[in-house]
Amino acid sequence: MTGAPPDGTRFVLPDAAARRVEVMAALRSLYHAWGYDLVEVPSLERYDPAHPRANQSFKLSDRDSGVLALRADFTPALAQLVRLTQPAVAGGAVRAIRYQYAGSVWHAIDPELARTREFTQVGIELIGVSNARADAELIHLARESVRTVGLVPRVEVGNPGFVRAAFTGAGVPLGLQAACADAIDRKDRSDLAALLGPLQLEREVAEAVLAIPDLYGGIETLDQARRAVPWAAAHRELDRVAGTLLEFEDDSDLMVDLSMARRLSYYTGLTFRAYTPDFGQPLLGGGRYDGSLLPAAAGFSIGLERLMRAVARVAPSSEPPPRVLSLDDPAARALRRAGVRVVRSLSTEVAAARVEAVERGVPYLLVAGRIDSLGQPDADLSELEAILHESGEAARD
Amino acid sequence: MTGAPPDGTRFVLPDAAARRVEVMAALRSLYHAWGYDLVEVPSLERYDPAHPRANQSFKLSDRDSGVLALRADFTPALAQLVRLTQPAVAGGAVRAIRYQYAGSVWHAIDPELARTREFTQVGIELIGVSNARADAELIHLARESVRTVGLVPRVEVGNPGFVRAAFTGAGVPLGLQAACADAIDRKDRSDLAALLGPLQLEREVAEAVLAIPDLYGGIETLDQARRAVPWAAAHRELDRVAGTLLEFEDDSDLMVDLSMARRLSYYTGLTFRAYTPDFGQPLLGGGRYDGSLLPAAAGFSIGLERLMRAVARVAPSSEPPPRVLSLDDPAARALRRAGVRVVRSLSTEVAAARVEAVERGVPYLLVAGRIDSLGQPDADLSELEAILHESGEAARD
Repeated sequence: MTGAPPDGTRFVLPDAAARRVEVMAALRSLYHAWGYDLVEVPSLERYDPAHPRANQSFKLSDRDSGVLALRADFTPALAQLVRLTQPAVAGGAVRAIRYQYAGSVWHAIDPELARTREFTQVGIELIGVSNARADAELIHLARESVRTVGLVPRVEVGNPGFVRAAFTGAGVPLGLQAACADAIDRKDRSDLAALLGPLQLEREVAEAVLAIPDLYGGIETLDQARRAVPWAAAHRELDRVAGTLLEFEDDSDLMVDLSMARRLSYYTGLTFRAYTPDFGQPLLGGGRYDGSLLPAAAGFSIGLERLMRAVARVAPSSEPPPRVLSLDDPAARALRRAGVRVVRSLSTEVAAARVEAVERGVPYLLVAGRIDSLGQPDADLSELEAILHESGEAARD
Repeated sequence: MTGAPPDGTRFVLPDAAARRVEVMAALRSLYHAWGYDLVEVPSLERYDPAHPRANQSFKLSDRDSGVLALRADFTPALAQLVRLTQPAVAGGAVRAIRYQYAGSVWHAIDPELARTREFTQVGIELIGVSNARADAELIHLARESVRTVGLVPRVEVGNPGFVRAAFTGAGVPLGLQAACADAIDRKDRSDLAALLGPLQLEREVAEAVLAIPDLYGGIETLDQARRAVPWAAAHRELDRVAGTLLEFEDDSDLMVDLSMARRLSYYTGLTFRAYTPDFGQPLLGGGRYDGSLLPAAAGFSIGLERLMRAVARVAPSSEPPPRVLSLDDPAARALRRAGVRVVRSLSTEVAAARVEAVERGVPYLLVAGRIDSLGQPDADLSELEAILHESGEAARD
């Protein structure tokens, strides 16, 4: 193996890797506190052309002439896990199952687009219950996920069902709905107008649909939508959003975005995305997909690489070098027991160890029970000496 | 996607997944305290027929008609990382680089052998220095890895260089060495005798080689080997083992196994395997492979699935269910802040929540600032009530 890693893959160096572990541990612990159980799913799957991301999968030939695919998404694998281990819930029984996951996914997209093809997803699924309390829990945890890594959250809540109901009310033909939804999701009013033009809708009807890309803002957006879009079925979908937002005692950092219309045929209830100020791309996205893979299921997933870019902007760099370079194994052990990071010198010569410490930026050298501060301020020195003294491993005069 | 996961892959359910995370965190923290930096390497690699595990790789076709392989081993990828980021060390400069890693590897072995094809490796590499101190550090950390997960260690240290030197001394032809080494490694004296037979070696020479499978035991094994195997080059290899063992103030749980001869052409210095009593298979294996991928490099890797089986034997099961099922969000938050695992009921009816708590084995129900112990002993109840009281979220009478 020579040269750089394959296009769209990369090495993660110590500083970044330490941070990723820290962020993943913080998220894991948040979800754990709320009762989400960690599970692991295989990264090799049987290739299934009906998989929602089948056209993005890396395929592998297996020995038995079967075709495997690398995991492109966690949701289908988690649904399979529920079908295997909780068949009653997979058959429609109401029972809350809470899972969390973290791991790699692979998308076989064109490497010339210079995008990542191997990345890390962290997320949760709340399966077996479909109601406003469940949706509110996920939206709250989306917000907390952003907060827990030290970022200011903004969570936008939408409902593709509202867009679907408006299309039905306006008489937008099924074949045109995906394109119109896409234009709405991109908030591209002129593209939407061009798509609707040939339909020769009544003016009020066309205006109702053309209003959707602007239905974005605080909770008052729901009233605005009620006035702009007249159909009763669409109003019922607004009631679902209102009902979920009512679950929050604290709705700070929540926004309504009724133009959210991505994956219209997959999501069946509320959808949401979380952002942080001055970082354009969403940090996580999710929603309810009842009936797609399981009778009742909703969840969200975080793109870890993107989240780390956002985290790096507010808190650049991290891992300091080890604090002590040691030529004294018993004393080093005493320091490690006290939580100090100590690296051994592999030379036995003090002069060489001193050069090594300076080159690596390690501030202290430990030789024969003595700490040498190598010209650093002595504040920590006394702390390290106290540890050695207590352990009985300090040099005796 | 339907049915069970592909052969050789599996789901990891909550109990086991929680344990895996715990064990991986303990190992990560051990290696970190010793100055090993975590790095991540891609799981997609360019397929290379010269890769030590090329014949075990899952292959994938890439869009640009290149061939990719799933990572079958961490060592080559880490060597590539060193070549890219530390070219001086890759060129022979002496500078200690310490890496740790954890992640999946995939072996495309025949699924009919019913073995795992996707598994998890955790390990460390100590690159850039080749001496007894470096070897001793790795062997010590192999022993500590087993201890840190709560098992009693036994680390066996060998030196394939000793076997190679004996073959040269005895005049075993190169073409026969791999088969003889394999017989020695399996401690199969009769197979070894059958292989040596046609060579018509002098009796003393044949007896020296036939003695190797039995050269196993405490440090006195080295003297025994010196008497049994006469060649000076072989004695120099015994000196290497002795020199490394001399580095230990505490050599408890260390054994010498001079019949260790696996991957004779790959390992160039000491090799070792760690075991725990009454568990036949090695928990980890490693050694020095100077010149194979980098001028100076040694390391070891742990098969996490096997380690977890050994851990499960001494400490079966783990994760308790969440402690509290809640219908009171503000009070639940106060408990979570105090480290209590609290799951929300998605029903709003107390009777339904009570049934849910009993069914899930959750011992306490939280409703309107009151903790209901559901018939459990009340020891913890007062602790939970104290948390709520302090936070001001307890029910007021």
